[in-house]
Amino acid sequence: MIEYNSFLTTDKAPFGATVPHKTVTFQIHIQAIENIKRVALVVYQDEHWAGPKAVIPAHQVIADTYTSEFIPETGGLYFYFFMIELPDTAIYYGCQDGGYGGLGVTYRSREEVQMYQLTVVNTIDQVPDWYQDATFYHIFVDRFKNGNVDQHVNAPKANSFIYGRQTDLPMYIKNKAGEIVRWDFYGGNLKGIESQLTNLKAMGITALYLSPIFQARSNHRYDTGDYFKIDEVLGTLADFEHFLNAVHALDMHVILDGVFNHVGADSRYFNLYHTYETIGAANAQSSPYYDWFTFKHYPDDYESWWGVKDLPAINKDSQSFQRFIADGDQSVIGYWTNKGVDGWRLDVADELSDDFIRKIRQQLERHQPQQHVLIGEVWEDASNKVSYDHRRHYIEGGALQAVMNYPLRTLLLQLVNQQLSASEFVTRIMTLKENYPRTVFFHNFNNIGSHDTQRVLTAVGANKAKLHQVLQLFYTLPGVPCLYYGDEAGLTGDVDPDNRRFYPWQHEDLEIKTWVQDLLQLRHNDPLFHNDADFYAFSCGSAFGFFRTSSIDAQYRLCVVNPTPNQGVLKPQLLNSVGLPKKLQAIAQAKLAGLQLQAYDFRILD
Amino acid sequence: MIEYNSFLTTDKAPFGATVPHKTVTFQIHIQAIENIKRVALVVYQDEHWAGPKAVIPAHQVIADTYTSEFIPETGGLYFYFFMIELPDTAIYYGCQDGGYGGLGVTYRSREEVQMYQLTVVNTIDQVPDWYQDATFYHIFVDRFKNGNVDQHVNAPKANSFIYGRQTDLPMYIKNKAGEIVRWDFYGGNLKGIESQLTNLKAMGITALYLSPIFQARSNHRYDTGDYFKIDEVLGTLADFEHFLNAVHALDMHVILDGVFNHVGADSRYFNLYHTYETIGAANAQSSPYYDWFTFKHYPDDYESWWGVKDLPAINKDSQSFQRFIADGDQSVIGYWTNKGVDGWRLDVADELSDDFIRKIRQQLERHQPQQHVLIGEVWEDASNKVSYDHRRHYIEGGALQAVMNYPLRTLLLQLVNQQLSASEFVTRIMTLKENYPRTVFFHNFNNIGSHDTQRVLTAVGANKAKLHQVLQLFYTLPGVPCLYYGDEAGLTGDVDPDNRRFYPWQHEDLEIKTWVQDLLQLRHNDPLFHNDADFYAFSCGSAFGFFRTSSIDAQYRLCVVNPTPNQGVLKPQLLNSVGLPKKLQAIAQAKLAGLQLQAYDFRILD
Repeated sequence: MIEYNSFLTTDKAPFGATVPHKTVTFQIHIQAIENIKRVALVVYQDEHWAGPKAVIPAHQVIADTYTSEFIPETGGLYFYFFMIELPDTAIYYGCQDGGYGGLGVTYRSREEVQMYQLTVVNTIDQVPDWYQDATFYHIFVDRFKNGNVDQHVNAPKANSFIYGRQTDLPMYIKNKAGEIVRWDFYGGNLKGIESQLTNLKAMGITALYLSPIFQARSNHRYDTGDYFKIDEVLGTLADFEHFLNAVHALDMHVILDGVFNHVGADSRYFNLYHTYETIGAANAQSSPYYDWFTFKHYPDDYESWWGVKDLPAINKDSQSFQRFIADGDQSVIGYWTNKGVDGWRLDVADELSDDFIRKIRQQLERHQPQQHVLIGEVWEDASNKVSYDHRRHYIEGGALQAVMNYPLRTLLLQLVNQQLSASEFVTRIMTLKENYPRTVFFHNFNNIGSHDTQRVLTAVGANKAKLHQVLQLFYTLPGVPCLYYGDEAGLTGDVDPDNRRFYPWQHEDLEIKTWVQDLLQLRHNDPLFHNDADFYAFSCGSAFGFFRTSSIDAQYRLCVVNPTPNQGVLKPQLLNSVGLPKKLQAIAQAKLAGLQLQAYDFRILD
Repeated sequence: MIEYNSFLTTDKAPFGATVPHKTVTFQIHIQAIENIKRVALVVYQDEHWAGPKAVIPAHQVIADTYTSEFIPETGGLYFYFFMIELPDTAIYYGCQDGGYGGLGVTYRSREEVQMYQLTVVNTIDQVPDWYQDATFYHIFVDRFKNGNVDQHVNAPKANSFIYGRQTDLPMYIKNKAGEIVRWDFYGGNLKGIESQLTNLKAMGITALYLSPIFQARSNHRYDTGDYFKIDEVLGTLADFEHFLNAVHALDMHVILDGVFNHVGADSRYFNLYHTYETIGAANAQSSPYYDWFTFKHYPDDYESWWGVKDLPAINKDSQSFQRFIADGDQSVIGYWTNKGVDGWRLDVADELSDDFIRKIRQQLERHQPQQHVLIGEVWEDASNKVSYDHRRHYIEGGALQAVMNYPLRTLLLQLVNQQLSASEFVTRIMTLKENYPRTVFFHNFNNIGSHDTQRVLTAVGANKAKLHQVLQLFYTLPGVPCLYYGDEAGLTGDVDPDNRRFYPWQHEDLEIKTWVQDLLQLRHNDPLFHNDADFYAFSCGSAFGFFRTSSIDAQYRLCVVNPTPNQGVLKPQLLNSVGLPKKLQAIAQAKLAGLQLQAYDFRILD
């Protein structure tokens, strides 16, 4: 009776996110409803909930189709629904429960209606050329490779433990109260990573994301001790410079983990243990770092990250901290970017203000425009993320260029573990495409696991066929895939610390490694899997499929996956084409007819 | 009125322990008691408590002195008291409460009387010449010295941790249930010990006692994995042979820690974790090692040392185990003794049968008579130790030649910490002299701390003056002093694991080291501090003193210590000479008159 599909440009144009002052056209189709008094598009501006920004009458252009236009004035989010006024009542049409795009549903009252999201970005962000089709490798640096010939660990820290063997499983060394009392190290270092650059490049990796490398007490180094020192366990500054040169000499790139929400209690800035010669905030209120922190009672009671007293939190309003991090060549961002670092992943971006993130981005752009990338750790759809009761503006231009795409990881695992139907998967991934600005969706920092999640092989129940399918999707879907070290070698592992095992040198699963290498080559060699190829998803029964298309010469790749353990023949009559333009629907109907899929099959059709 | 002093040969001759078929003469002095009907010596044989072995009338030889004689027929312990029969009643005279020798006390009833001990040994044991005046150094091998130039740890074990720095404090890595889940290593090894032999020899050390060195899972290696393998972390068999050669080339000697009461669950013999290729007792009941263990329910419930499931206990009746350990050149004792090991310290000797201990001793004597020493871990006076409701016969000949003299350690610490008066100290140390056979008392394996106790410096409250006094006594008293590694370097530490810190290379307390070196030179250079010099103790007020005397030319050294923080002048009228023969009393009276002692003074008078 009533139908509107936000995924199709026949109903909403342009697709997805837009910019201010540009007309967005909406067309809703209404059949077999009589005595319609008025059809209107109701638009709300984000955080202005007192009343609609606009109630825009829809005009019946052709039979059953009502058209309305909206021109956003500013960036940010808008939300909309349709209202069909009848003589005595009204029908409301909004999005499906959960905020997904695509086809909507009717609601009986205005109170119940859920609204579609319209993302409006202030500026269309660009990504550096090197990042466009980069294929990343995420290294938890203590756990990858010890580059010393004799495998000694560089400069072990006082009161730390070194694993007896690299094959030992990681564990935390805690006291009875559950507090970590000594940090455990395997001794991976910069030389070790450098020694593997050629191999990684040969596998198809073009860029590295390193977990924190600055001086710290722990093995993860999220407890920064000194932002201007390479941790001694990893090597010297000279080692890092040598490593950077080697990276760039191979035309590879590297981004660092920027941890700017908190520092270590054992840091030059807080200096709880008097390890540093500076006067830290915990040492005296006259400390130059005093205003970085928030003391409830000086010096023993202070704000900390999630209550972890080892991680005193940074006062978000401290301008001196923000300058220290992001203002000028001598700032943390400036200094390391000058050394040649190609970008940053911002740890716990939710905890940083939009303003601070923009300053970091500005410092990067000041350095060399569009050469550096700024990625945020955000676990949800970053287009509409609310943190601390505030809407975040991560991806509306001038801030983050991408976020860690944990939602995609969740979808892939749910699909292959059959916790989500193929058609639900389509709705959700197309919603991400719709909500994100195009640049972000097509360059989002995809992952199928990280140091903060179960290992992907463990997450698929150690089923290698499932893993293969996840990898195949990971490397053919849009976005910048970032593989967590060891996932290609068959590492398993539950959540932290088990997901941080040492890379299994001499014990790699070579089959998985070959899969990854082949997929990386496919991605690099086939322009239709590059990030400038468009993306349209569909389902067909329990099968999921998608097109990657070239708008230039109308080429395409049609990929179909069977995320089930059962073989079967596709029935085109089950095609759910909510995300497909007409032309692609026709291709799908033709190509899929009678297609036989094996269990966990992944097929690429030309 | 009644007086008997077992310490003096005027009252009991010969002094101390004796042998069967030799007359022991007792003289008790009774004054101012009238109508004595009879004086008798009442002797009980150990474990024959139904009635006395003998009631021997004492004859009044001279005024007030009653003499009786007893001739023990067999070795073992005898206990005695005196009975003075009066017309209507009797007076009993036994030892002081606690079983000490020396002067006794009267008791009103036979039920109350406490008896003096008479030790009778079957044979008078000898010690090897090299052991006679040896000065030992006890090394907990993981914690002394890493002999690798680059300080790498040899062959770290799977699932172990290596300390980041040698200055880190030791800790156990436990799970929430308090079980050790990974073993911690510093990586001390045989090459490290070998590299220090010349220095130890220069300091005055002549022999080493090594904590267990055979293959095991833990850092202490009391959980033997393979009795015929040097633990890989310590080095190879070739390293051990090289080390033994180096020891002997310096005319030094070495004893090993023999752990024969239990093995590791992770051993070739029990093989709980299938680490070894042998069929262990936990693997099959057909295992050749099955009868070494006692299963309450096969294979999961078995007897273990103090309930520690990681240490399955050996079945004491297993003849195959006893043969494995001590029968022939291919036995554990035979094999390592053939390699050149000079003796053994038997771990938890209380848990081994006297019979098994004798077999071990016999194997040593078979090899080369009187060249090897067998020492037992016994924490109390080993002459009368009862373990598991049985009197032990450790030191009655043919078994142990010495025991770890923990009672002396306790006495020294109590003296210097003023928890024991000087006169109590005299009674107790003279009781040890009396109870032990002469060879044992003068060659007992003295210590002031071990891997099982607080560090001596910690035990004296980190008071270096007290430590100096303890060291001075340790090195001038009879016995074979065995210094726990690092005590000479100022290591502190509470009980296990804190008493097992790594030797503080580059951070040694050189003052303490000089004290130890000077005392060792004194002991070696002055024959009156050798173990063939006799020993007589006395007190004088709060001061403790002793004579070391040569019976050949009647030379002596008179040592006096002030175990208090107050200086003072000795008053000879306070002399308690319960342990001194008349001639020495006179010397003491003369020499001590007006002697001024500083706080914690230790004086040697010629």
